[in-house]
Amino acid sequence: MTQTIHPIDVIIHKRDGLTLTDAEIEAFIRAIVDRTPDNQLVTDAQIAAFLMAVFQRGLSPHELATLTSAMRYSGETFDATSLHTFTIDKHSTGGVGDKTSLLIAPILAAAGLASPTPAGVPGICVPMISGRSLGHTGGTLDKLETIPGFNTQLSLTQLADTLKKCGAALIGQTPRIVPADRILYALRDHTGTVESAFLITASIMSKKLAESLNALVLDVKVGSGAFMPTYESSKFLAKLMVQTGEASGTRTVALLTSMDEPLGRFSGNWIEVWECIDIMKQDRHPMSADLIELTNILAGWMLYLADHAITPEDGAVLSDEYLRSGEAYSAWLKIVAAQGGDTSLFEDPATHHKPTGTRTITAPQDGYLTSMDCKQVGWAVQRLGAGRAKPGDPVSAHAGIEMHAKLGDRITEGQPLVTLFAEDPTLLNEPEHMLRETLKITPMLAPKQPLIREVVTM
Amino acid sequence: MTQTIHPIDVIIHKRDGLTLTDAEIEAFIRAIVDRTPDNQLVTDAQIAAFLMAVFQRGLSPHELATLTSAMRYSGETFDATSLHTFTIDKHSTGGVGDKTSLLIAPILAAAGLASPTPAGVPGICVPMISGRSLGHTGGTLDKLETIPGFNTQLSLTQLADTLKKCGAALIGQTPRIVPADRILYALRDHTGTVESAFLITASIMSKKLAESLNALVLDVKVGSGAFMPTYESSKFLAKLMVQTGEASGTRTVALLTSMDEPLGRFSGNWIEVWECIDIMKQDRHPMSADLIELTNILAGWMLYLADHAITPEDGAVLSDEYLRSGEAYSAWLKIVAAQGGDTSLFEDPATHHKPTGTRTITAPQDGYLTSMDCKQVGWAVQRLGAGRAKPGDPVSAHAGIEMHAKLGDRITEGQPLVTLFAEDPTLLNEPEHMLRETLKITPMLAPKQPLIREVVTM
Repeated sequence: MTQTIHPIDVIIHKRDGLTLTDAEIEAFIRAIVDRTPDNQLVTDAQIAAFLMAVFQRGLSPHELATLTSAMRYSGETFDATSLHTFTIDKHSTGGVGDKTSLLIAPILAAAGLASPTPAGVPGICVPMISGRSLGHTGGTLDKLETIPGFNTQLSLTQLADTLKKCGAALIGQTPRIVPADRILYALRDHTGTVESAFLITASIMSKKLAESLNALVLDVKVGSGAFMPTYESSKFLAKLMVQTGEASGTRTVALLTSMDEPLGRFSGNWIEVWECIDIMKQDRHPMSADLIELTNILAGWMLYLADHAITPEDGAVLSDEYLRSGEAYSAWLKIVAAQGGDTSLFEDPATHHKPTGTRTITAPQDGYLTSMDCKQVGWAVQRLGAGRAKPGDPVSAHAGIEMHAKLGDRITEGQPLVTLFAEDPTLLNEPEHMLRETLKITPMLAPKQPLIREVVTM
Repeated sequence: MTQTIHPIDVIIHKRDGLTLTDAEIEAFIRAIVDRTPDNQLVTDAQIAAFLMAVFQRGLSPHELATLTSAMRYSGETFDATSLHTFTIDKHSTGGVGDKTSLLIAPILAAAGLASPTPAGVPGICVPMISGRSLGHTGGTLDKLETIPGFNTQLSLTQLADTLKKCGAALIGQTPRIVPADRILYALRDHTGTVESAFLITASIMSKKLAESLNALVLDVKVGSGAFMPTYESSKFLAKLMVQTGEASGTRTVALLTSMDEPLGRFSGNWIEVWECIDIMKQDRHPMSADLIELTNILAGWMLYLADHAITPEDGAVLSDEYLRSGEAYSAWLKIVAAQGGDTSLFEDPATHHKPTGTRTITAPQDGYLTSMDCKQVGWAVQRLGAGRAKPGDPVSAHAGIEMHAKLGDRITEGQPLVTLFAEDPTLLNEPEHMLRETLKITPMLAPKQPLIREVVTM
């Protein structure tokens, strides 16, 4: 905190609904990262009071952009300007069975490798910094780490090297990127200030913008499996994120997409990698159709923003071509190898799925699969061992579920609905009960939401 | 926290504007006092988030009564039921030169001593637990402690003994009374959550109700020297306090009184004791008129509530009689002696006023004294050494000011307006400047607010 700006004044100004100055926001975030145990420039209690004041009062677009920027620059940032390439990323607010990152990174890498810059760098680079499973949602890093040897802990120099070679890299948060968010997130989790669209935006966007992106596509989930409770709250979050990205000079587009059922065939860790490998090897399982559709639409927007397609729709067609041509799979093998992963497993991924316990739930009656609480399905996957109850817990590589039906499907009594996998068979019972409870088969077909609900741009 | 109530849920419920249950409020306060460094049932950050949520969302009358009660019973309480007397107290939200406690305690004690119970206990007892100077306001304990030997740190047993003998006692907060408030207040001070009428009410009323009072009269200040910024906010606070007191079974009345200028002649520590002794010895200085008036009105309400007068107005007349008859002075001598104070100083209190530095500000022109920022006057008194910058700092016995004019007085150029006293002459300069700046003499008389603005009852 500078001599003239005291944390308590910043708290009081926000508490009273005043607009904070840039200097106030920057000084507050600076104090958070500069404090030491012996020099509490700002205390946890003060940060908590600030967070609750922001929760209640909100932030103006300019305040939010300033907070996001102050957080973005609170530690080291990845700067790809020396690569003279187009950097782009995708971020999802989190879903069940959402493995689009594992497909989008290779698709965009394939496009980048096919159009190198004069210096020989891929024309598009995807510096994808991802997270881990938490709560009812899966995490890209946990899925990747089921590939033996795959190293998600690259330094920023290694990240740049991998991008130059492969056009994409899939890595974890480094401790020195956006340290302010780590401190703020831990306190939000602890003080009931998680569910603020303003604070969520600052958290997500500070980390994404720390990748110094030219463009960003956001997949904001709506529906029973989304973090945000209502369509309107998801849309509000999407608007804040788009506005904040654009304010920082990054072209930002958000798609509101349905998360009313698990995306694709599998939800878990290795089984999600397996599903993606099948797709990239042109082995398209019918249950993966929605996953492929969403992947192509998101990648299509990215290819459009990167000027590789005239429209997002053309981009989606191009994306599917990269999948069907095998170019995405080649890029995938390149990325995995560059990050130390053993690609030999990809030859026959099904044989590497080794759950100890398996159980299949069949339909108790004829009818239509009309609804489920997708969050409940996500929690069942977590309880099977695929997710974690708290940060730092281990996750099971082989736990998860395979869906055998989609919402709206005609169901015959006795047909398999979902298969559960666990590494410890005693873990099957509770998730079985949770899934039986939430999968609703009714005589009449209920209307189903489209996969893409709305596109939010500036 | 019980197994079923988690602090974070209490925070989230208040954050979202829900009404907290009694069990939630009680569990939260219990966690605050039961926590240990090794077992953080609730953290400072969580308490801060809760305080900010309450600041923003407010509390229903029932929530406020429950919070106040949970705080009241968070430690030991004074219980005078075994005395079979009528217990009553007065509390002021804090002012400049406000020394009514030093007069009201002996007046009520005189009334109590004049009407003993069958068991020989005074018929009215005033277990007055007071505070210290902080900010721009004075503190009763600091004034009393200028009397050599006066012990404000009585145990609750000693308090009961003193009441039985004298009908009143003037003591400080014990560490075991309302420990929840000490923790909450320190955090409020630190996190920008002081200025909430709800939290102020819970803080004040939990401490006053821990005296197990039959009745309580509140002096809620309004005007430029009051803590609350507007008349409406003071009135809102008064209503909350009356409602909370009545909810606990204590008859509670609040008077909204003007604090636009220092009350009485002196503002400081020993000089305020001196002013009261003069009054109790029937030596009424003209500058003490407003102090005597407010004292009699507050004491009148107390005598009325204690059934010693048919109306508050009759009570005020009775109060003045106790002052004029010398009975209040006798009670005062008894109280001071019982608490170990040296009453010999009271024979000629003026001779015990020994400032090292004295300076008098005179009127720069003819006119009327029409306004001052009374808070600024209070800060000048504090800077002279009579108050403290932070808790624990020492205060000067002899520092302070003597006012020579009241708002509305006709002023002649060169006439003394105010005399400053300090124990260190270098401390005179800044307060002199502050006072010169704020005392406004204008050619036209401006309207003056009455001393009593409004009475708030249930």
